[in-house]
Amino acid sequence: MELKLFQVAELLGGVCHGNGEAIIRSVSGIDEALPGDITFLANKKYQKSLHKTRATAVLVVQKYDIEINQVVVPDAYVAFGTLLGVFYPQEEQFCGISEKAFIEEGASIASGATIFPFACVRRGARIGGGAIIYPGAYIGTNSGVGEESIIHANVVIAHDCQVGRNVIIHAGSVIGADGFGFANPGGTNYKIPQVGLVQIDDNCEIGANVTIDRGTMGKTHLQENVKIDNLVQIAHNVVIGKNSVIVAQTGIAGSTKIGESNIIGGQSAIAGHLKIGNRVMLAARSGVHGDVQEGSVVAGTPHREYQRWLRIEAVISRLPEMREKVIQLQERIEQLETIITTKEGVKNGHPSNGDNLP
Amino acid sequence: MELKLFQVAELLGGVCHGNGEAIIRSVSGIDEALPGDITFLANKKYQKSLHKTRATAVLVVQKYDIEINQVVVPDAYVAFGTLLGVFYPQEEQFCGISEKAFIEEGASIASGATIFPFACVRRGARIGGGAIIYPGAYIGTNSGVGEESIIHANVVIAHDCQVGRNVIIHAGSVIGADGFGFANPGGTNYKIPQVGLVQIDDNCEIGANVTIDRGTMGKTHLQENVKIDNLVQIAHNVVIGKNSVIVAQTGIAGSTKIGESNIIGGQSAIAGHLKIGNRVMLAARSGVHGDVQEGSVVAGTPHREYQRWLRIEAVISRLPEMREKVIQLQERIEQLETIITTKEGVKNGHPSNGDNLP
Amino acid sequence: MELKLFQVAELLGGVCHGNGEAIIRSVSGIDEALPGDITFLANKKYQKSLHKTRATAVLVVQKYDIEINQVVVPDAYVAFGTLLGVFYPQEEQFCGISEKAFIEEGASIASGATIFPFACVRRGARIGGGAIIYPGAYIGTNSGVGEESIIHANVVIAHDCQVGRNVIIHAGSVIGADGFGFANPGGTNYKIPQVGLVQIDDNCEIGANVTIDRGTMGKTHLQENVKIDNLVQIAHNVVIGKNSVIVAQTGIAGSTKIGESNIIGGQSAIAGHLKIGNRVMLAARSGVHGDVQEGSVVAGTPHREYQRWLRIEAVISRLPEMREKVIQLQERIEQLETIITTKEGVKNGHPSNGDNLP
Repeated sequence: MELKLFQVAELLGGVCHGNGEAIIRSVSGIDEALPGDITFLANKKYQKSLHKTRATAVLVVQKYDIEINQVVVPDAYVAFGTLLGVFYPQEEQFCGISEKAFIEEGASIASGATIFPFACVRRGARIGGGAIIYPGAYIGTNSGVGEESIIHANVVIAHDCQVGRNVIIHAGSVIGADGFGFANPGGTNYKIPQVGLVQIDDNCEIGANVTIDRGTMGKTHLQENVKIDNLVQIAHNVVIGKNSVIVAQTGIAGSTKIGESNIIGGQSAIAGHLKIGNRVMLAARSGVHGDVQEGSVVAGTPHREYQRWLRIEAVISRLPEMREKVIQLQERIEQLETIITTKEGVKNGHPSNGDNLP
Repeated sequence: MELKLFQVAELLGGVCHGNGEAIIRSVSGIDEALPGDITFLANKKYQKSLHKTRATAVLVVQKYDIEINQVVVPDAYVAFGTLLGVFYPQEEQFCGISEKAFIEEGASIASGATIFPFACVRRGARIGGGAIIYPGAYIGTNSGVGEESIIHANVVIAHDCQVGRNVIIHAGSVIGADGFGFANPGGTNYKIPQVGLVQIDDNCEIGANVTIDRGTMGKTHLQENVKIDNLVQIAHNVVIGKNSVIVAQTGIAGSTKIGESNIIGGQSAIAGHLKIGNRVMLAARSGVHGDVQEGSVVAGTPHREYQRWLRIEAVISRLPEMREKVIQLQERIEQLETIITTKEGVKNGHPSNGDNLP
Repeated sequence: MELKLFQVAELLGGVCHGNGEAIIRSVSGIDEALPGDITFLANKKYQKSLHKTRATAVLVVQKYDIEINQVVVPDAYVAFGTLLGVFYPQEEQFCGISEKAFIEEGASIASGATIFPFACVRRGARIGGGAIIYPGAYIGTNSGVGEESIIHANVVIAHDCQVGRNVIIHAGSVIGADGFGFANPGGTNYKIPQVGLVQIDDNCEIGANVTIDRGTMGKTHLQENVKIDNLVQIAHNVVIGKNSVIVAQTGIAGSTKIGESNIIGGQSAIAGHLKIGNRVMLAARSGVHGDVQEGSVVAGTPHREYQRWLRIEAVISRLPEMREKVIQLQERIEQLETIITTKEGVKNGHPSNGDNLP
């Protein structure tokens, strides 16, 4: 793949400054870039790298007054992502339904879908046009996978689940296992049947080895454009609002409703039956035990407003010194008490109190 | 599926109050219920919903003096679970051994077992009657799966492991991978062969993408009726006593013995070589570093008795104020010292001590 | 399997003390051992068990002056591991390429490799001699698996990844899923293509249901002899230095560089873009938010030097008492102030200050 810089600018809807005829052969990070590469500057704090980069050109959001070819675009990181897709196209040569797949009678597969060897599509399941079902993936009875969605190897989508269009589910994830519901836990552990489903709306992306349980009744629901990282646990009847992003190894307990455009840091935990508002940010490893208001930034376990959490952590980090201080204060008080008591005692022959002062 | 209310009562061994001829078509939560549904009241705090529900009938543990059809049962949540199973039966139409499965010579499969396409049953493995082995599941050499057990898609049971009867293992779980044992860790990392096995007793249920490692020697052992949620890690030679329940993303390190009827909250961690007594409750995210006595309720990292943990957390949440208080106390002490010192100094021309007081 | 004790000694390069003709039939832990077993003493604190064990012989690093057959070896635990491998040999009878596997045209499989049923080897992939690819494993386009490596059931190695020689990857792990990279997170979530790869060097071992994401560009890299436990998350462009060991459920965020010979405790978290030096030890559940110097031992969230962390935790555990102390000190200060103020007030008719002292 080879493009001239002016072609890159056209492709991105950007403005080219410098030598539009320069040949671009690849994209790269600003420090690793070599001649022939185009790189990007998305954060001004890396501006000094502009002077050192060996890249042939750089994507920027404003023209810089230095000697390097530049393409000015509205969002340099997005433009960079676009070029990665252009220079590293991912194509699947396989196409159609493998004879080594298992398509149960009563399954429906749109033309243009790809079903790899050892994939299973059970009765009543529907696979949309352009969808790709990789080897070992299992699409349960009556489940649907929308158009252009990619279900990677060994993903399991249990029965009656709905996956929208342009969804990506990475390898090993399990959609629609039973929720963890038992009456009399620790005793008989009587299993409550989990008869709901999982619904994943369009443009969601789900990482590898994620687990999303079906609803006890009703549904567990990921709304449009939700992005979930690896090894995340989503329990029964959770709802995640559109555009929210959940980083790896987070767990969300049953029936909690997450708002839209949340950003939830890695290894966080959110207890069950809570309501998290829109545009909430959770620092990594937050442990949320109560509702969180729209727009909040929280951190810590139990979670606290971010600035408050910083103040508490600052004190914790100095606790040994605070303990020393308290011990010193105690000693100084004892000295003062000794002085006062002795003085009073000398005068009055008994422990002092204010009423007896001369 | 349609039942008259008196039939529901008979099925549950309950007592019907109201119109026994009322038609029940489904089960539902008390707030979502519609006419034709039966719902349940398991917790008195939702009693006010009784007056608002649109359900045709409600499962209760005592008769309420209001205008709604009621079925009195010993445990309303258990009865509700039973009805979910009745109104949402899960049947598998597939039956027998698929020609697309791989049954190695020397495997033994009881009549009435179901082996799906792309499942593997290795030599020496034994599958009990009524068991279901879903696509992509792997049953290793000499491993056994008991009667009526369900092994979901892409589960891996490595060699020489024993799974009892009526066990459910959800998709993607790995039973019997090698324990994590290396001599000279961080140096040569010399691998200690893991030659033990995993034994899972009757009526256990294991979530999705769980990992249960085989013993170094001897066994890792889940006793009867243990229930494990998704993404839990059970290390080599752990024993989990019967009826215990472990919530998602918890990790239990090697050789720890968990008692019976424990309830272990999500994202907890239990260090290795510990002994946890019976009927212990661990709050979510507990970090257990020492033995825990029978009947304890603990929380926090490091774990503490629950009430103690609450007190500590209460102080932590007010630490910035405590710090302010200590600073104020210091200032007040300095003022007192100044007063005393100055007074003494003025009178005596040198630092005070009690002996010099008038 | 049966060996005479002198044969065991020869095999281990050790020195036999006692009855070299004694028959050894198995290996076992010191407390569980029965006659016919050989056991080991790796830690002097278990020395008293030497007097009680029923084992026929014991592996030791120095001769003990007691009545039991002993084999003196340089490292008793390593010797024990070696014997486990001898007495519990693991052989795979299957060999060659199963007709039920899917070998795409353009894949290359060395003679002596074993490919099980339902394994997929895509075009351009290369499998080395002696490697074993278990059922359901997926080797993506242009990926390589080195000689003698073992890829367990249902492992997914996505396209363009490189796995070295003598590597073990346990069941269900996913190597090379897309890194979690989105521009404008929480908003448009514009996907940044992940065009890098994963490289796993010789002698690594990776647990079950682990996820190791491919680099955004460049690579995610596990250097030689790295050992990773179950359910660990390794994000895009992470580098892990040789011989490092990472315990279960740990997560390492993007672009962090881990040094050599690190030991990272379970359920730890390491933030992105950090540099961790060589020979660092992280206690279980550490939360690392900044660079860590070579040779450090750290613990806690946020991480602190280990001794410092112990001191802080000691204070935290006594916080309710410290709070009581501060309240008491406040009361004593108030008493002192009352005494002083009253005394001054009595003499001067107004609140005291030092300047007014007589």
